[in-house]
Amino acid sequence: MQTKKIELLETYLSLYIDHMTVLNSIKKADSPYVILDVRNAPAQVKKEQIKGAIAMPAKDLANHLDELNKDKIYVVYDWTGGTTLGKMALLTLLSADFQAFELAGALEGWKGMNLPMETL
Amino acid sequence: MQTKKIELLETYLSLYIDHMTVLNSIKKADSPYVILDVRNAPAQVKKEQIKGAIAMPAKDLANHLDELNKDKIYVVYDWTGGTTLGKMALLTLLSADFQAFELAGALEGWKGMNLPMETL
Amino acid sequence: MQTKKIELLETYLSLYIDHMTVLNSIKKADSPYVILDVRNAPAQVKKEQIKGAIAMPAKDLANHLDELNKDKIYVVYDWTGGTTLGKMALLTLLSADFQAFELAGALEGWKGMNLPMETL
Repeated sequence: MQTKKIELLETYLSLYIDHMTVLNSIKKADSPYVILDVRNAPAQVKKEQIKGAIAMPAKDLANHLDELNKDKIYVVYDWTGGTTLGKMALLTLLSADFQAFELAGALEGWKGMNLPMETL
Repeated sequence: MQTKKIELLETYLSLYIDHMTVLNSIKKADSPYVILDVRNAPAQVKKEQIKGAIAMPAKDLANHLDELNKDKIYVVYDWTGGTTLGKMALLTLLSADFQAFELAGALEGWKGMNLPMETL
Repeated sequence: MQTKKIELLETYLSLYIDHMTVLNSIKKADSPYVILDVRNAPAQVKKEQIKGAIAMPAKDLANHLDELNKDKIYVVYDWTGGTTLGKMALLTLLSADFQAFELAGALEGWKGMNLPMETL
């Protein structure tokens, strides 16, 4: 069982990227990371987003894959880490052979650490 | 690793059902879905629940399987998506050969979208 | 798919230990459980912790494994169940052949049930 646990944890954790890795990279001009806000809510409900994120609702993602770039690394996030929307978006991206991660802790964690946000 | 990630995401996401699928179905007379509130708390702590849900605390579920119907599809939820109670109930149901899903986003997500609730 | 779901749920749930098992044991003098608070935050941000927990930030854990005891069972927790820090710490511990679990529901769930806390 120990081996199964370790394998599950390794694969599960490999789906995620942490806040600081993303934040430190996107400050640079040539960052490979692109943050996708995959919340399925209109701007007036979302009110704000992670600074520099692109709004790409999970429900529309499959129809916009031709706008994405295989040289980039996509970082998706939803409201909290307890939802499944980020993982749905991630599955769509990985299945289409894009490089992608879910943001660990999601928007809630990013805000909780007072990282840069912007108003919508 | 990409294949392992995709397999994990596919299996993980197959455990869940989304709010709107459930909500649209339970409005109809012949809905196959039955919502089970598996929180292990008394009514005065829960205060409210998803409209039409049946209280079936996870700790009691194994002793009530004979009251369930194999033609129905059970949708379990706990307070938030970050707990394990829903998955424990789901394992009990699937292992007993019932059709069952965990509600994506749990009670927190349902309330966050202002979907129908009822007072206990 | 049903078999895959059950296997995933079994392995996933085997990573966790529930509040009451831990609480009932740590009241006794010879409890095998040791609670590790793996939040990467300073005490003034954390403000309080689970009573009797040892502060062991996930980022430092790998350098402190020689202080741990293979006869103990380590219980790690982060702020909420939606983060990945607990699972990162768990992977470090299991990979080093320690007995360890993540606390189901994390700090949020423990506090939500009004279980014993202490100020930092």
